[in-house]
Amino acid sequence: MGSNSFGEIFVITTYGESHGAGIGVVIDGCPSGIPIDLDFIADELRRRKPGQNRFVTERNEDDLPQITSGIFEGKTTGAPIHIFIKNQDQKPKDYENLQNLFRPSHADFTYQKKYGIRDFAGGGRSSARVTASWVAAGAVAKLLLKKIGVEIIAYVSQIGDISIPENIKIDTELIESDPLRCPDSETSHKMQHLLNLLKEDGDTIGGIITCHIENLPVGLGNPVFHKLHADLGKAILSINACKGFELGSGFSGVAMRGSEHNDAIECIDDRIRTKTNFSGGVQGGISNGMPVYFRAAFKPVSSIKMNQDTIDTDGKAINFSIEGRHDPCVVPRAVPIVEAMAALVVVDHWLMAKGSQFQ
Amino acid sequence: MGSNSFGEIFVITTYGESHGAGIGVVIDGCPSGIPIDLDFIADELRRRKPGQNRFVTERNEDDLPQITSGIFEGKTTGAPIHIFIKNQDQKPKDYENLQNLFRPSHADFTYQKKYGIRDFAGGGRSSARVTASWVAAGAVAKLLLKKIGVEIIAYVSQIGDISIPENIKIDTELIESDPLRCPDSETSHKMQHLLNLLKEDGDTIGGIITCHIENLPVGLGNPVFHKLHADLGKAILSINACKGFELGSGFSGVAMRGSEHNDAIECIDDRIRTKTNFSGGVQGGISNGMPVYFRAAFKPVSSIKMNQDTIDTDGKAINFSIEGRHDPCVVPRAVPIVEAMAALVVVDHWLMAKGSQFQ
Amino acid sequence: MGSNSFGEIFVITTYGESHGAGIGVVIDGCPSGIPIDLDFIADELRRRKPGQNRFVTERNEDDLPQITSGIFEGKTTGAPIHIFIKNQDQKPKDYENLQNLFRPSHADFTYQKKYGIRDFAGGGRSSARVTASWVAAGAVAKLLLKKIGVEIIAYVSQIGDISIPENIKIDTELIESDPLRCPDSETSHKMQHLLNLLKEDGDTIGGIITCHIENLPVGLGNPVFHKLHADLGKAILSINACKGFELGSGFSGVAMRGSEHNDAIECIDDRIRTKTNFSGGVQGGISNGMPVYFRAAFKPVSSIKMNQDTIDTDGKAINFSIEGRHDPCVVPRAVPIVEAMAALVVVDHWLMAKGSQFQ
Amino acid sequence: MGSNSFGEIFVITTYGESHGAGIGVVIDGCPSGIPIDLDFIADELRRRKPGQNRFVTERNEDDLPQITSGIFEGKTTGAPIHIFIKNQDQKPKDYENLQNLFRPSHADFTYQKKYGIRDFAGGGRSSARVTASWVAAGAVAKLLLKKIGVEIIAYVSQIGDISIPENIKIDTELIESDPLRCPDSETSHKMQHLLNLLKEDGDTIGGIITCHIENLPVGLGNPVFHKLHADLGKAILSINACKGFELGSGFSGVAMRGSEHNDAIECIDDRIRTKTNFSGGVQGGISNGMPVYFRAAFKPVSSIKMNQDTIDTDGKAINFSIEGRHDPCVVPRAVPIVEAMAALVVVDHWLMAKGSQFQ
Repeated sequence: MGSNSFGEIFVITTYGESHGAGIGVVIDGCPSGIPIDLDFIADELRRRKPGQNRFVTERNEDDLPQITSGIFEGKTTGAPIHIFIKNQDQKPKDYENLQNLFRPSHADFTYQKKYGIRDFAGGGRSSARVTASWVAAGAVAKLLLKKIGVEIIAYVSQIGDISIPENIKIDTELIESDPLRCPDSETSHKMQHLLNLLKEDGDTIGGIITCHIENLPVGLGNPVFHKLHADLGKAILSINACKGFELGSGFSGVAMRGSEHNDAIECIDDRIRTKTNFSGGVQGGISNGMPVYFRAAFKPVSSIKMNQDTIDTDGKAINFSIEGRHDPCVVPRAVPIVEAMAALVVVDHWLMAKGSQFQ
Repeated sequence: MGSNSFGEIFVITTYGESHGAGIGVVIDGCPSGIPIDLDFIADELRRRKPGQNRFVTERNEDDLPQITSGIFEGKTTGAPIHIFIKNQDQKPKDYENLQNLFRPSHADFTYQKKYGIRDFAGGGRSSARVTASWVAAGAVAKLLLKKIGVEIIAYVSQIGDISIPENIKIDTELIESDPLRCPDSETSHKMQHLLNLLKEDGDTIGGIITCHIENLPVGLGNPVFHKLHADLGKAILSINACKGFELGSGFSGVAMRGSEHNDAIECIDDRIRTKTNFSGGVQGGISNGMPVYFRAAFKPVSSIKMNQDTIDTDGKAINFSIEGRHDPCVVPRAVPIVEAMAALVVVDHWLMAKGSQFQ
Repeated sequence: MGSNSFGEIFVITTYGESHGAGIGVVIDGCPSGIPIDLDFIADELRRRKPGQNRFVTERNEDDLPQITSGIFEGKTTGAPIHIFIKNQDQKPKDYENLQNLFRPSHADFTYQKKYGIRDFAGGGRSSARVTASWVAAGAVAKLLLKKIGVEIIAYVSQIGDISIPENIKIDTELIESDPLRCPDSETSHKMQHLLNLLKEDGDTIGGIITCHIENLPVGLGNPVFHKLHADLGKAILSINACKGFELGSGFSGVAMRGSEHNDAIECIDDRIRTKTNFSGGVQGGISNGMPVYFRAAFKPVSSIKMNQDTIDTDGKAINFSIEGRHDPCVVPRAVPIVEAMAALVVVDHWLMAKGSQFQ
Repeated sequence: MGSNSFGEIFVITTYGESHGAGIGVVIDGCPSGIPIDLDFIADELRRRKPGQNRFVTERNEDDLPQITSGIFEGKTTGAPIHIFIKNQDQKPKDYENLQNLFRPSHADFTYQKKYGIRDFAGGGRSSARVTASWVAAGAVAKLLLKKIGVEIIAYVSQIGDISIPENIKIDTELIESDPLRCPDSETSHKMQHLLNLLKEDGDTIGGIITCHIENLPVGLGNPVFHKLHADLGKAILSINACKGFELGSGFSGVAMRGSEHNDAIECIDDRIRTKTNFSGGVQGGISNGMPVYFRAAFKPVSSIKMNQDTIDTDGKAINFSIEGRHDPCVVPRAVPIVEAMAALVVVDHWLMAKGSQFQ
């Protein structure tokens, strides 16, 4: 399978560069009969869009999705669904002064070495712009999940070293109304203060997104490869700037004892559940019916306005700075991308699980 | 592709249960002409084997690999390589008293729901025993990597809350001689002390493995999906008990500023390198020639000797404890598994990269 | 992989229906550095287009390909190439009177049973219209093959029971100037006469396309699955109305003796070749450097203007006839489709072969 | 996916050479709960085995399958099923005098060029021996098909130019009792006479196998790629010596008119069927519930005892003859292989079809 496709049965194939005609995605393997709400897909794209508030880049991308196939009378037909998103804001000129140097911690150098060319305009396929197509495909996946009752919700839980205090009850209703998609307003205010300072400096910072998947059926995932959390990890680590993934207790579970970490099983009113959920809803690679939750670490954005040392394409040392519109922190905009990738994995595993038992 | 296979071009397909006749792996897509050193494969399996010291389970598995195809006069032929590892120590009786209950944080419950059966003897495909086949396949991958100069070294960097102090220079020569595969002997002694206490309690603890990949060519990995670190993440998260993965700065990079985290590029003696390496050797999903390094978090082993609450297969609450041989901590034995999975990913990407440019 | 994708490394993913906004294809895995000649792609599409002469359907499809990604300064970049072909001639009304019945030997009945819906307008994904996207992708493959000297040429060798006499030397220069793409003008005249008669009757007829692949390197294909001719067979049998495929001697080789059929090997001026080529250029699934040639059988088109018996969607027997524009014989237009599918297979195998030997 | 694997969901991965320790197959993706009858698998292997009568090679291969995983208490568990078949009759010496030359119409030359080595002993992976593993996997597929009522029956319909007369009613009960698996005894006698003559000459001949698939559910297969008959074609063309495949009317349909070839649809007692079945049970790539039938052409075996011209590995012209045990005609033994490959395709498509509609 090509390196621009994702999934086994519900397969997305993506294309397009940040500053070409547009980007797109083909969804193959979607069952027929799913009602497709175009407004919902457009809303999801709007959530990812830059320029929503003063903390994210101010480009005016009008990400209206055009579906050109696979839908008939408002429902999926079983045929591949193609969604195209026109690029509105093509300004390759912004990048002209960057075309002869390698920006630090960008893909400029690795891309050139791999392909032997410099598609300098906006980073080619390495641009975060390409994730719009993932969000569009993820929206279709979410519409399928809605029919089976699965819900996926992500939010910003940390920016820099400011994180939501532990043991705070998360009110997911608050996520979308917060400018940073942080459901705790006190924490959000601290984060906003930090981002204001960084913006003045032209500097950036990293963050963490937490994601919950609720009402997942038991039995999704596989015992060896295609473990549910391994596929989630791959999906999330594919998002630009993501450097870490942890399920359930994750890195903090390392310091726990087995007697503490084991999730005791109980059966209440014929429903089997665990008293704790350090496992994060997955045991032996397979969902156990408890909420799946994971956290994703994002590094600070590489595009800073401050002076930086690097080399030009001839290997000569130079000093430069990046102009233009860039986020001080990527995580608020990455929230819908995390949800989209999680939705794609869950739908794929839901379809994969259909052949587990003979029936 | 089946859920017991891994890889795109260098593909491994695994089979076998912990307590059947044996386990095995078919490696398809290995180029012809790689010298195969059987002793090296056997050594790698010995590194994973239980019973190497008093901190790992004492079963006497004699993991002698039998290669039944794909080798001719000591070299790979291009045909699929089949490696079989006989199970020496089949004691399904140990598990008999467990067959009517669901062990907490094991795959018992999820496996039964997924497949409708209870292959109780040793956990079926969920047993860590199956990773022996990964190590055998990884050893073949390492023999290929040796020919192109790539080296993969992993070690234990944390057990419980005891970790190697930062800024200590790691001497990789010390790893294999340490009973816990921790290259800092002072840290190792503290860890051993902790494990002794846990063993007395019948309890267990988690840990972290750090892995370095050196001399990787520039250009492995892809800009969208099949990013090098996303595939590494998936590979490592497939290892039993692994709950987290981070590349380069990982979760700690979250609190860094872009100006601090960006890896300035320099060119010294015609060799392009970065001054720092917070990126972990991967930029935009593609290797940049710097060392790739990552960390993997392992939860405490679920098999504890202490009393636990759970339910039986009829949903009735019961209390039980697990007898028999179990590790207080899985990470020392997981070191060669981490290396094996990393080797499989690197070889696969090395082969995938062959078609990037027309030549 | 989805059922609208084809290939292992050079992978095409297609979408679009005959009467929607358009059809398209994403080509993933094309190496960077291939010069892309847009006029060549448009020409290939024109060859497949209906309405080129009075024997093929007269719809005026203006199949201008739009490439929206993957090309930079006239060359492939290694990024996925998206080609969109707008539908010019959407007349779903033509099909309105057909929406409540199942046309014999069409996909109406099977499609409805499979997907539970009736995308009646033009047959959904079952329309031959979708092959335009294959031809566009095949044109890109041909541009790569041009760089390595491989040439693919197909022609009509039989219509009804009229076939090119054996032992006639084929002049491939004559193919495109002949209205039926039959390189023997005497045979073509007989075929044209037959088609004129059929057109008057509103009836149709089948035919055979022969295809030659010249200058193929030795070593493409694999010994077990992904044999070169098995992948060619699958590719060609995917073309609408194709019911048979044979390589080299094919069905006529059945009556030959081994002593007659074996292709004796000789070495002339250091070039190894075979005296005969009953094998069709493939031995043990792998190309041997001799011309690969195969024949594909196409059934008569199902859309006839004559009265036919069938049932409506309620199962009631009815009698109907199909109005509108339809070919009396599909094979002249299928010639570029056969070439395109063959080109896709050859490029894919050329890329697959890169990892056969360690080097 | 590797080139020794076949299938999308029900995936087989094969290994082993004709003269190594043995051959084997891993079946991944088989649902749990299928009763596995070991005797049935052994019987299927026995059908493929050489030495069953004087027209097939007389090697005494005792193809007893060993299942080492994936079965628990007589049923599949959902885990991968590994079947190993030991090689009993390793006589690489037979081949010693052939190791320095390229046998005409064998894979010797192409294999050496592809892999750079000469695994001379019996042709490596190119040996027909490897098909025993396909038959073992196909037997598992047949056991699944038995549960859904699908039946697959193949027989010899032509050897040389002797074929079963058209319009003869085939009594499938007679197939296995006939020494050539030809269900018409008069035709079989003529064929036997021909084979006796060829055996005296040390020559060989080709043949045709016809295969019927009965009681297939409607809706298997896909409208674009993974058409049911395209996957069947690929499967059958993967069989050693197979040079042609045709579904339904196949090559003979070329000379038919649409009005004659269209299969009129009727509905009798609420069952929808077609009056004729020139389509061969597949319309638009999807099964329509009518019997699927196809024919496969096999070339004459390349191993003849007569003198042949070829070159040695240095390119020098030489003359040689092949000693030892070889079939005058391969088709009687290929019958169970055709059935096995067809069964694998059908099961794979049955599983693939599970996600077509939302439910």
